[in-house]
Amino acid sequence: MNLPDTLPSSDSAVLLLSGGMDSTTLLWWMRSHNASGIHTVAIDYGQRHRVELEFSRKLSQAGGASRHEVLYLDLRQIGGNPLTSDTVDVPSADDEDQARTVVPFRNMLFVTLTAAYAEVHGISDLYLSPVRDDFAAYRDCRREFYDSLEQSLQLGATRDTPVHIHTPFIQHWKSDIVKLGLSLGVPYENTHTCYEGRRPACGVCDACAERIAAFRLNGASDPLVYEIPIDWTP
Amino acid sequence: MNLPDTLPSSDSAVLLLSGGMDSTTLLWWMRSHNASGIHTVAIDYGQRHRVELEFSRKLSQAGGASRHEVLYLDLRQIGGNPLTSDTVDVPSADDEDQARTVVPFRNMLFVTLTAAYAEVHGISDLYLSPVRDDFAAYRDCRREFYDSLEQSLQLGATRDTPVHIHTPFIQHWKSDIVKLGLSLGVPYENTHTCYEGRRPACGVCDACAERIAAFRLNGASDPLVYEIPIDWTP
Repeated sequence: MNLPDTLPSSDSAVLLLSGGMDSTTLLWWMRSHNASGIHTVAIDYGQRHRVELEFSRKLSQAGGASRHEVLYLDLRQIGGNPLTSDTVDVPSADDEDQARTVVPFRNMLFVTLTAAYAEVHGISDLYLSPVRDDFAAYRDCRREFYDSLEQSLQLGATRDTPVHIHTPFIQHWKSDIVKLGLSLGVPYENTHTCYEGRRPACGVCDACAERIAAFRLNGASDPLVYEIPIDWTP
Repeated sequence: MNLPDTLPSSDSAVLLLSGGMDSTTLLWWMRSHNASGIHTVAIDYGQRHRVELEFSRKLSQAGGASRHEVLYLDLRQIGGNPLTSDTVDVPSADDEDQARTVVPFRNMLFVTLTAAYAEVHGISDLYLSPVRDDFAAYRDCRREFYDSLEQSLQLGATRDTPVHIHTPFIQHWKSDIVKLGLSLGVPYENTHTCYEGRRPACGVCDACAERIAAFRLNGASDPLVYEIPIDWTP
């Protein structure tokens, strides 16, 4: 994997830590690069899979972050999305309309809210974990978007201060992230992925299916417990 | 005033209507241009001057909007700002540190949340009312910022759809807005400005002082009731 050898020498950073595989691996990777003063932020947006908020908090502590903050932004009021609605079905992995799992501008809202938190705490470096697999369905997971957002944040900041959005995993596939995470000892059994919010995980929803495929590609089995038997043959 | 002669021919638009002078004048101006299908959005961000939310709702109806929506985004969790905190004093008009009334990325969050609402409703045209007086203290009231934000929204939208941020008042002073509004019959007695959230208005806070000056420059008196006697001599 082509990843930076060093991190910016700032003494603090904010990581958007959902409690999923990608952001947790990013925390462990930052730690392996001796990042200090890491604040982790989780967003409570009214998600159906609320269990991930609890996982995020525990992973922040296990990952050695110096502070964990939950920020509230209710996306249910925007409406029409299965991740926040009790009445819209989550699409399964073979459903072509993955775009239905997208709340409009969700990432943009999360990053901007996190940037507000960072500004109040005098922090300039934000870390996010979009991965290459997300490109097709989620336009706001592309670096082109983050470059623009970085500029908007710099122009909109209260004071003339730099804001850097770091997305070290953005060119890498989820299977590469799992490979990296296994080498770093990420406790994947304590991460959460299932869109249905189920523990054991459902193993069927789009998020579970992607996760299972990423482990399979590494010839590894996921330590997470699933409701259904999973074939770990690559 | 140099304002557009016509509006985009779309059959709907979203206006961020705070219930203050500028956004209310914008609603009346849009109406005078035969805008149809106007959705107004007010943001409940935990503001101390909560009364403005009620004014916004009434003004939306009086201004002929087809729908009014209140979106919630608690900025108190970001902290340290007098507009949302009960323990930080609102600066008075002669206080040089107006930046203290700025919640980081407040406008950016409001516009992005409004854009999410607009996308769900299939609306591409957003209307906002920053004015020239805001430039000095608020970097996110400059058109340069909104151009960048418009680009970020276009890149981050769920689908490849245009997003237009209209800021027709951005080059104009608040006193010009009052002049326009008086000619359009804006019911300024029903708008809210006071940062202290007081009715009658305090007449002393920075927002009240700016408002009073804008009427004075027009040789007009503000129909709003103030706690203290105001000298309306220009």
